[in-house]
Amino acid sequence: MFKNMFSSFEDTIVAPATVPGTGAITVIRVSGPEAIAVTGKVVKCKSKSIESSDANTIRYGFVYDESGYAVDEVLVSVFRSPSSYTGEDSTEISCHASSYVASEILRLLCGAGARMAEPGEFTRRAFVNGKMDLAQAEAVADVISSSSSASLRVAMNQLRGGYSSELRSIRSSLVELTSLLELELDFSEEDVEFADRSRLSSLLDEVIGHVSSLASSFRFGNALRNGVPVAIVGAPNSGKSTLLNSLLGDDRAIVSDVPGTTRDTVEETMVVDGILFRFIDTAGLRSSSDEVEKIGILRSYKKLSEASVVLALLDCTAPEEENETLISDVVSRIDFSAQKLVVLFNKVDILGSNINVTLLNKEVSLFDNKYIRLYISGKTGFGLSDLKKELALTQKDLSSDFDHAIVTNSRHFEALNSAASALGRVKSSLSSGLTPDLLAEDLREALHYLGTITGEVTPDEVLGEIFGRFCIGK
Amino acid sequence: MFKNMFSSFEDTIVAPATVPGTGAITVIRVSGPEAIAVTGKVVKCKSKSIESSDANTIRYGFVYDESGYAVDEVLVSVFRSPSSYTGEDSTEISCHASSYVASEILRLLCGAGARMAEPGEFTRRAFVNGKMDLAQAEAVADVISSSSSASLRVAMNQLRGGYSSELRSIRSSLVELTSLLELELDFSEEDVEFADRSRLSSLLDEVIGHVSSLASSFRFGNALRNGVPVAIVGAPNSGKSTLLNSLLGDDRAIVSDVPGTTRDTVEETMVVDGILFRFIDTAGLRSSSDEVEKIGILRSYKKLSEASVVLALLDCTAPEEENETLISDVVSRIDFSAQKLVVLFNKVDILGSNINVTLLNKEVSLFDNKYIRLYISGKTGFGLSDLKKELALTQKDLSSDFDHAIVTNSRHFEALNSAASALGRVKSSLSSGLTPDLLAEDLREALHYLGTITGEVTPDEVLGEIFGRFCIGK
Repeated sequence: MFKNMFSSFEDTIVAPATVPGTGAITVIRVSGPEAIAVTGKVVKCKSKSIESSDANTIRYGFVYDESGYAVDEVLVSVFRSPSSYTGEDSTEISCHASSYVASEILRLLCGAGARMAEPGEFTRRAFVNGKMDLAQAEAVADVISSSSSASLRVAMNQLRGGYSSELRSIRSSLVELTSLLELELDFSEEDVEFADRSRLSSLLDEVIGHVSSLASSFRFGNALRNGVPVAIVGAPNSGKSTLLNSLLGDDRAIVSDVPGTTRDTVEETMVVDGILFRFIDTAGLRSSSDEVEKIGILRSYKKLSEASVVLALLDCTAPEEENETLISDVVSRIDFSAQKLVVLFNKVDILGSNINVTLLNKEVSLFDNKYIRLYISGKTGFGLSDLKKELALTQKDLSSDFDHAIVTNSRHFEALNSAASALGRVKSSLSSGLTPDLLAEDLREALHYLGTITGEVTPDEVLGEIFGRFCIGK
Repeated sequence: MFKNMFSSFEDTIVAPATVPGTGAITVIRVSGPEAIAVTGKVVKCKSKSIESSDANTIRYGFVYDESGYAVDEVLVSVFRSPSSYTGEDSTEISCHASSYVASEILRLLCGAGARMAEPGEFTRRAFVNGKMDLAQAEAVADVISSSSSASLRVAMNQLRGGYSSELRSIRSSLVELTSLLELELDFSEEDVEFADRSRLSSLLDEVIGHVSSLASSFRFGNALRNGVPVAIVGAPNSGKSTLLNSLLGDDRAIVSDVPGTTRDTVEETMVVDGILFRFIDTAGLRSSSDEVEKIGILRSYKKLSEASVVLALLDCTAPEEENETLISDVVSRIDFSAQKLVVLFNKVDILGSNINVTLLNKEVSLFDNKYIRLYISGKTGFGLSDLKKELALTQKDLSSDFDHAIVTNSRHFEALNSAASALGRVKSSLSSGLTPDLLAEDLREALHYLGTITGEVTPDEVLGEIFGRFCIGK
């Protein structure tokens, strides 16, 4: 039969695609060779049957139980293979959002020949039936979990296949390389070097460059997905928690007048200019004899070194030498090639009219050597909009190119790194004049790793792990 | 235009019909004269546009934001007036279940000319556009909140108009009565009694009987909806909490060996044989000098008097005279015309082989005078399936007739009671030979109250209150 050309599954699965009991309606998905027949057994329409409905049409009907009682009035969307999410015959039943009604309909569908789907089984079928590759399937989960325009754009690009097509172009270069080498291999007995080694070498450099640039996009991709890490460091009682609360417009971190209140690091996220930032409040930096506080301070240094942006908070009413000590401590711990430092002079509200802070904040953007300076008040909110602007600017060089493939998935990052090392071995073998058969093996390994990303060569247990993280009904 | 014949609303509303961020997909509803145009501005399809789509078809497309970035891939269901839930042109957009994606799509739809819907506004439009009457609209909420087959059946009957048609038949009898009386009224100057007073009287009795029987179904309807109240009473430490936990298969109530642990009444629900039972654990009954415990015991008596079923729990290892005192106390407080009493001899596991309890439990069903007796063990679960059977049997005379209209709504119950009193006044006026004009006024009042149920004469503020309780998107 026609549909069997597209689907390798014999059973029909069912699951709610929305959470029953919340909202106005619940949608139940049915997919598989018998999806339409099973739905037709459970839902009765006044005019023609569900089975005889055209593809992509909606029918109004009633679900009846075994005793003939109406369970609910529903709308049924009918999809026919291969034009459906899974590639199989499918239906979506919209019922009233009652957990009881949904469980009754699921029970009746299972009685009519379907079985409950496992987590991610609909998307897994879409993958197996060739409706999407593995990277696209993973992007479905990324779109669902996206929380900013930047992370959504990257996920949508991946879902629409932009990322996969970039991988395809790398793979086709590699296949070309391999065939050139294999050609050489076939004739190695005669000791004839068919492949132009300089052409091989330039092609290889190009591919390595492409793979490495993809792999290096992970730092940004990961920041987009999980938030750009921003550590807030400073002396005890310099107002770190107040600043964080003021930024978030919320009272999550515990604020008190006692220095050293924040011992555990607190993380909160906020979207600024379409980019997700993850703020990490830290314990106050000072020399302390308290063992617990010492541990907190060590943790602050660790968070500082892991952050993409460091906000160093100074109390501008504190003695100047104290602030200078702190700044030189922080500056000595920062890797300016990878991290941005913003020095914040806090508590300007206490200075009152003694200082023209508006002027000072304007001066800041001109002041562009190692770090940015801002005068703020976490208490009154003064200067915080400038701070948000500066935060967005720290990411501006990264955020311009969302349409280019960006790696957000650590599984892909690892595969790309493995491919890059294999390609590195090919390159050094090539330059040290090794025989083509040794090069070919490393090339095949690189191809294998790239193939795991889009799912050409992904083992079943990896697939199981990927789709198992999906929710039921997806 | 055609669609304006069906819709009295000029603006187009939008809301999520499922809760964004949970499940696999989110459904966003759009309804109003511009629903399809607004959706077409936001969703672009490869082949023909949303605007040119046929009614009841599904289109696949992408949502783009103002900068041309793809926000999500979506399915759009297109409905055309008057064949839609609201009676207006409508669409349903299925997107990925991300709160961020949903909020972006809602923002874009509002930018394209829609506005966010108020709670219940879709159903209110369905009511105003004549797609359903008020009782049917209220049944939508009842279907959503139904938690047992019995409550769902009653709600579905109401949703499908069974209840409304029963009310219509009462109203048409009343209209007939009124016209008979008004005929008499027109000729009253000539002092001719056109209406056969005995026919009037029998018609009136029939209507009063119908209204009263509907009103009296509320006791059952309310029990169906909120659960049949079952009070568990007994001496301290007779095992009430253990029994409740064992019945529910859960550890909700606090169980301890110290008598008097349960001071507050605990309520849990369970469906037995399609009927929802609401179990009320109570403080142990005994003479106590502890003031707090005394309050608890008074509350136990109150719960006992309000319950439909009373489970009196005895410790069958306790002295016989104690059990007898308790039983006579409970029996003296029960209204056997409205309440059922089940006496449970608990802790039979301690008796061991001294007593053939299986035989005893079989004997029980034969023992059918004032109350039912069962030998059980809350601890081992012995006899609990018999107890569940007996519980279901206590409601059997009520549960046979779900297709008949049953009042589950206190608003309807009050309206029926008011109609019944007005009709009672008509009856006494009729028998005391009052003039037809006085009778007619009371008849009109009865008609008015019946009309508020289905919404013919319901004031705007009542409508606002009813639909305001609905969730957003319904």
